[in-house]
Amino acid sequence: MTFQLMIHGGAGAIHQKQDYFQSTFKVLTEGRSRLESGMSALDVVELCVAMLEDDAVYNAGRGSVLNAKGQIEMDAAIMSGVDLNAGSVAGVQLVKNPVRLARLVMEKSEHVMLIGEGACEFGKLHKVEFESMDYFMTEKRKAQWLDAQQCDKVYIDHISVDEAERKLGTVGAVARDLHGNLAAATSTGGLVNKKFGRVGDSPIIGAGVFADNETCAVSATGYGEQFIRTTMGKTVSEFVRYKGMTAQEAADEAIAYLVRTVQGVGGIIVVDKNGNWGSSFSSSEMIHGRADSQGVVVLT
Amino acid sequence: MTFQLMIHGGAGAIHQKQDYFQSTFKVLTEGRSRLESGMSALDVVELCVAMLEDDAVYNAGRGSVLNAKGQIEMDAAIMSGVDLNAGSVAGVQLVKNPVRLARLVMEKSEHVMLIGEGACEFGKLHKVEFESMDYFMTEKRKAQWLDAQQCDKVYIDHISVDEAERKLGTVGAVARDLHGNLAAATSTGGLVNKKFGRVGDSPIIGAGVFADNETCAVSATGYGEQFIRTTMGKTVSEFVRYKGMTAQEAADEAIAYLVRTVQGVGGIIVVDKNGNWGSSFSSSEMIHGRADSQGVVVLT
Repeated sequence: MTFQLMIHGGAGAIHQKQDYFQSTFKVLTEGRSRLESGMSALDVVELCVAMLEDDAVYNAGRGSVLNAKGQIEMDAAIMSGVDLNAGSVAGVQLVKNPVRLARLVMEKSEHVMLIGEGACEFGKLHKVEFESMDYFMTEKRKAQWLDAQQCDKVYIDHISVDEAERKLGTVGAVARDLHGNLAAATSTGGLVNKKFGRVGDSPIIGAGVFADNETCAVSATGYGEQFIRTTMGKTVSEFVRYKGMTAQEAADEAIAYLVRTVQGVGGIIVVDKNGNWGSSFSSSEMIHGRADSQGVVVLT
Repeated sequence: MTFQLMIHGGAGAIHQKQDYFQSTFKVLTEGRSRLESGMSALDVVELCVAMLEDDAVYNAGRGSVLNAKGQIEMDAAIMSGVDLNAGSVAGVQLVKNPVRLARLVMEKSEHVMLIGEGACEFGKLHKVEFESMDYFMTEKRKAQWLDAQQCDKVYIDHISVDEAERKLGTVGAVARDLHGNLAAATSTGGLVNKKFGRVGDSPIIGAGVFADNETCAVSATGYGEQFIRTTMGKTVSEFVRYKGMTAQEAADEAIAYLVRTVQGVGGIIVVDKNGNWGSSFSSSEMIHGRADSQGVVVLT
């Protein structure tokens, strides 16, 4: 049995590509070595997403953007293809690694999804790591937020909404381990200057994240509302199940469906039960890469 | 073209059946007359779920159970099969009709899902109705909560978890209007004595609620975590799409899938694009009923 790993770091027009390339390569290399030494897909997707959260270059964890109140509100989810078990958090503040909190929800509660202060309270009880606001408040994020406040716009990550294509920042990982088990995880810092406790697709099981050993593992990045309305993760899975598609065929077909039904913008990474991989996006680019026993490939 | 309407009021062992029967009959009769006079499926499912929310007999809206802090936290969602547009709220307090707030999110925001205080703030901006705690705090709910606090148990609606089967309270409606358009809505008051901002399947598009004119409309009630993990709404839809099943065949197959994969307990109501209806449940009973131009039928 071989193993496969894919990660993504957001879709859209990408600036400063070399920063993303270096970081993506590092995370893939680490995840690959863990899979090679027998770590489960579930542990590896958690580890990879936590590494991406720790890197301020992405809009997740440390690099999360600021909401309209100048706070960080993060969402994350993780799912195991073995038993469809899942954990998810939305609207959590000051948690260093939301994906680890999602994993704790999966393992240590009877629930799948916890939100807001309640989710953080649960995290404290289970000794998840918290950071002060200083940790999250990079100069770049502060400047971006002040700018957004001035024109009172909701941004999707880095770039003014006036630009034709906005960077849609989210991170994610999908993996198939040496036992053939699948897992997926997704994490995001949401929208710049967002209001009203908006939640995107990242913490929604079946939308921004999905894993089922009978089909495939999926993580998405893009305009979250469109991915919720089309239940993208499950849509990819059912292309594999009912149309007998490979990961790549299912990824392409799902993005075509996204565009046809809701004019959706974004991308997905997929590893299927047979160890095929696929990626597809309707944005101009998507930061992503893959790794297996042969090596590591970084793509946009 | 004919029209179809189904509603449900929760799954599990049902006590005081006559109360539910009377209420279910009233809501179906009202919804039926609206569909007959040309109201859209979307408006009718909103109306029916709002009527169910107003009736204190159900665990949704007025009859919502109390969380661990003695508060009401409600979740609701609505979806249109015409364009896959959807609105959803989770963890909202003192909103008279969460389903109407979900509809406002769908119509008046760029977003699909809003949570907590932010969702309520959005509701205030759009003049949604709020009620004082007195409105929600029935004697029955207060007694139930005090009892739950004493044994520190999380209840699912009315009945002690010691009992073999718990009542799984949620309300929902699915409809197909004279134009053949489909819609679905679901609303719940969550779990008695719940902690940590737990969110179930009701506000999750593709889980507790789903509508697609290409397939069917679905509303679910049951143990929410199991319905999220199996993305039940979308699962039913894909049985119609890929296996060519009718609403009843798809409902039965989906509940079999729920039981096989996660030993799930609960039920679903379904109306398909051809105007067939279906319902199925793995709980001992489910309060539900249906109406069309022929009349009204109340079932458990």
